[in-house]
Amino acid sequence: MEKVKKIITKNNSLVCVGLDSDIKKLPAHLKDVEFPQFEFNKAIIDATADLVCAYKPNTAFYEAQGEQGIHELKMTCNYIAEKYPDVLIILDAKRADIGNTNNGYVKFAFEYLNADMITLHPYLGQEALAPFLDRADKGSVILCRTSNSGGHEFQDLEVGNKKMFEVVAEKVIDQWNLNENCLLVVGATYPEEMKLIRSKSDTMFFLVPGIGAQGGDLEKTLQAGLNSEKSGLIISSSRGIIFADNSENFATVAREETLKLKKEINKYR
Amino acid sequence: MEKVKKIITKNNSLVCVGLDSDIKKLPAHLKDVEFPQFEFNKAIIDATADLVCAYKPNTAFYEAQGEQGIHELKMTCNYIAEKYPDVLIILDAKRADIGNTNNGYVKFAFEYLNADMITLHPYLGQEALAPFLDRADKGSVILCRTSNSGGHEFQDLEVGNKKMFEVVAEKVIDQWNLNENCLLVVGATYPEEMKLIRSKSDTMFFLVPGIGAQGGDLEKTLQAGLNSEKSGLIISSSRGIIFADNSENFATVAREETLKLKKEINKYR
Repeated sequence: MEKVKKIITKNNSLVCVGLDSDIKKLPAHLKDVEFPQFEFNKAIIDATADLVCAYKPNTAFYEAQGEQGIHELKMTCNYIAEKYPDVLIILDAKRADIGNTNNGYVKFAFEYLNADMITLHPYLGQEALAPFLDRADKGSVILCRTSNSGGHEFQDLEVGNKKMFEVVAEKVIDQWNLNENCLLVVGATYPEEMKLIRSKSDTMFFLVPGIGAQGGDLEKTLQAGLNSEKSGLIISSSRGIIFADNSENFATVAREETLKLKKEINKYR
Repeated sequence: MEKVKKIITKNNSLVCVGLDSDIKKLPAHLKDVEFPQFEFNKAIIDATADLVCAYKPNTAFYEAQGEQGIHELKMTCNYIAEKYPDVLIILDAKRADIGNTNNGYVKFAFEYLNADMITLHPYLGQEALAPFLDRADKGSVILCRTSNSGGHEFQDLEVGNKKMFEVVAEKVIDQWNLNENCLLVVGATYPEEMKLIRSKSDTMFFLVPGIGAQGGDLEKTLQAGLNSEKSGLIISSSRGIIFADNSENFATVAREETLKLKKEINKYR
């Protein structure tokens, strides 16, 4: 969490750029280069690294390309770690298996890719997630209230007098966070729920997807989620930044959109 | 599900061999070959393909090796699909993201790897999983009651007068299974819970991990989980078969262990 706080202060930014670099959506001029996803990411990263606190590549868009995609994901993570070592790499992988098996994902995320954090499903419980939670030097970002329209199906189920997502939040805050390395995923599309979760912990950081293409309201999100230090949020935008322009000018426009989002967020801090 | 029933009949087997081919556990003579995970899997597959209904590679053990591992996972899936096309490939990936993103995992599992099924977390709900559920030609295997000792933390939470895993089971059985392509993960370590889930559907297939190294009781599992046709279970053993012997003789011993498990299961069918 020291690295998190340091980069937020250094770049004065809560913005995370989601590197959801779907190969079908890349600008036409990049489609025939040897490493299209990496070249696209590199241009986005170079254009925005002084404006963000984190990059969040989502594994799905790389795995869709098989081993070539994994290679370009590694190139991307290496590039960030070497050129902008202060900026966080959040691997949006949404993994979780039984304990023995999770060691494989730990190796993938934290050794092979050298990510700082990974997103995780809570369903198998704390015992299964121990290989992640035990890594005091790396972040475990637990799905709590996701940004999708159908997230309520399980997450809003009533467990006693609480909703399921509250139970997840409380377990992570009170029991799983022994190494002070846990964060929660709380979608911008649900500000009331975010407010409730913030009331349970002033210090825990939330990873906040759902701004932009998914329709989350920024002002409401910040009012609901900022902690007493006007921080505590890592606000991720993917499509709204990386695909804002589809011409050879895409990185410049991505910078403009990132700057706009950073300023808009900082108005409320 | 036609493919499932066909191979169970053809090989008279409910056995699934889990290809959890952790590179650190491979026999010493394979460690210096070019594709150690693939060569190991190929030997196991050739030794057991007439005795099983499915192979279940778990992505974690391949992703731990980065792009090389993904390459060997693809070689493994290709080998099964080409040489033993009737045998199921269950990709144990435990994925689930928002809908747009799941398309990437669909491409990874069903196009790149040509798997027949993939295991999925339920937490984001039916709406998010639509890209999987809509593939009527492929199986969606939803985590319901997992085999790990800490699985109860969320899965046994009381939701009204039911436990969480029952709610998952009922939603999948009653609402998600429109294309008759859903299965449930129900661990062998919880036979009482399996019996309860079986009482909700006679026809749904369960993928059953937890036999062997995890300590599940085979007789209790079969009494609890077999349906009225003495079928409905795909019983997976990984370490107990593939690492039963660590010498150059490993594949022969794997065959013996697979045959023993197959016969033991069929005693109760």
